[in-house]
Amino acid sequence: VANVPTECVIGVDLGGTNLKAALLAGDGALRCETRRVIAGLRTAELLDALADTVCELRERAREPVAAAGFGIACLIDERSGLAASSTHLPIVGVPFAAAMEERLAVPVRVDNDANMALLAELRAGAAADARVAVMLTLGTGVGGAIALDGEIFRGARGAGGELGHIVLDRDGPPCGPGCPGRGCLESFVSGSALARAAAAAGVPAPAGRALDGALVSELARGGEEVALALLRSLGEWLGLGIVSLINVFDPDVVVVGGGVCEAGELFLEPARAVVAERAGAFAGAHVVIRQARFGARAGMLGAALAAREALAGRVAA
Amino acid sequence: VANVPTECVIGVDLGGTNLKAALLAGDGALRCETRRVIAGLRTAELLDALADTVCELRERAREPVAAAGFGIACLIDERSGLAASSTHLPIVGVPFAAAMEERLAVPVRVDNDANMALLAELRAGAAADARVAVMLTLGTGVGGAIALDGEIFRGARGAGGELGHIVLDRDGPPCGPGCPGRGCLESFVSGSALARAAAAAGVPAPAGRALDGALVSELARGGEEVALALLRSLGEWLGLGIVSLINVFDPDVVVVGGGVCEAGELFLEPARAVVAERAGAFAGAHVVIRQARFGARAGMLGAALAAREALAGRVAA
Repeated sequence: VANVPTECVIGVDLGGTNLKAALLAGDGALRCETRRVIAGLRTAELLDALADTVCELRERAREPVAAAGFGIACLIDERSGLAASSTHLPIVGVPFAAAMEERLAVPVRVDNDANMALLAELRAGAAADARVAVMLTLGTGVGGAIALDGEIFRGARGAGGELGHIVLDRDGPPCGPGCPGRGCLESFVSGSALARAAAAAGVPAPAGRALDGALVSELARGGEEVALALLRSLGEWLGLGIVSLINVFDPDVVVVGGGVCEAGELFLEPARAVVAERAGAFAGAHVVIRQARFGARAGMLGAALAAREALAGRVAA
Repeated sequence: VANVPTECVIGVDLGGTNLKAALLAGDGALRCETRRVIAGLRTAELLDALADTVCELRERAREPVAAAGFGIACLIDERSGLAASSTHLPIVGVPFAAAMEERLAVPVRVDNDANMALLAELRAGAAADARVAVMLTLGTGVGGAIALDGEIFRGARGAGGELGHIVLDRDGPPCGPGCPGRGCLESFVSGSALARAAAAAGVPAPAGRALDGALVSELARGGEEVALALLRSLGEWLGLGIVSLINVFDPDVVVVGGGVCEAGELFLEPARAVVAERAGAFAGAHVVIRQARFGARAGMLGAALAAREALAGRVAA
């Protein structure tokens, strides 16, 4: 057990709307969780907000912070280290890891946010022991990640695992900034899609609340009929996407995480029904579809674990 | 070079309609190619036809035959070795490799037909040097295969790579026997789908010819307008499927093979246009979409190569 690294590290999850961060202490617990809204920030403001958040956490730590990991809603070009494409963040072309190392003066590890979330589930959560695991994170967009034999699969240049952009409807709605597709999975099952569907259905938001995916989930958990029907429909589209992923990967487990997943079984049960009806019988009979163990915290935790694993690699090398 | 195996082996490609087989001689050339129609045969008849074909080839060989490889349009359960599910062949539950070894008294290697085709392209064809390669074989059905770092990816239990069964249309046509899905890629781009579309469009078959995918390709190559339009439409659906595969795998290359691929650019050009319009920009900019080098022979050649590689593994072990 001498090889298990236990340095204190910081994990940051940068989604399309929120930045979440925490300390991962030597004892394995996430501490001092913090959150900021970053929607609408420009590039320099966003990088400042990230650095400020990490510095604040570092001041609150009781031990020295050895590294920081960032899961960001973005493709990272493996060859250049540049942020290559992002649907929701103004960081395309930014050498993200280098920019953060310069500001923070600790080793920085960067990866796609969904890859980080799956790493957490793989090391200690819903995908532990899986040879083949697939994850979908339902947030502002839909992130995707694939793990094969314990390692994240990134494709030939880092752009693999964009599972939110499998096509479910040739004539569906345009996907959004950063994706030229139409009718992608993300168009149907993201928090944004849920909010749009709720607005179209005339779901009323309580005074002072924005009608977002989290609110629709909350209303559904409270028994609101229209919100429940919207989550059921989201679950059916999710199930259709999972059918494709099962036929492609024959996975041991499909993990569903992200902010929307707090509504859990309200959409996973209809998703499982579609899978039972439509997926290839052999692969479909074995696969387990479950919520992320670490829920919306998986991204932060995975980013911290990745930073630690990179340190361990550096020491070993 | 002493490690490159050069035994004479037999490769068999068992699709939904035809059985094709050949000798792979010590000099690397495919010889004595042969073909039989197997559509409609029952299980015992099919196994007899396979064994007969191999025995005939063995009699024609000038050297002893060391092994036989079979690519079959079927899922193979990696744990039990049983044929687990097949859309087009009556062999579910058959311990295929054991049954053939008993009849042939040589080592037998069995895998999905599309996996065998990709192995040939990977070792010496359109996917040589690719870190991440994806293949679609358009025949009676649509086979799929994935190669990562030079090896075929099979999923957790052997059912991975069923790329013909990614969903493109939630409300599309039922996929067919063996797949409970609707609107799968296979429903739109197989030879059978092409023949159905041609029949619906009133394309006339010359006297004595069946209106199948090969005939529609032939008519299109001859300039027949309706056949050309059908191949263009097939190419657009194919492109939509390839968009999903690019977003999932970020591949170096997508190889298109199988019987329908003889019509080549008539459908690959429209497929590439859809990819250029809809795939993620970063992954889409790098990927190459090309025909199988070995065309409809890739399955046979890959099966023979797999048999040889298995022999080499056995000697080394």
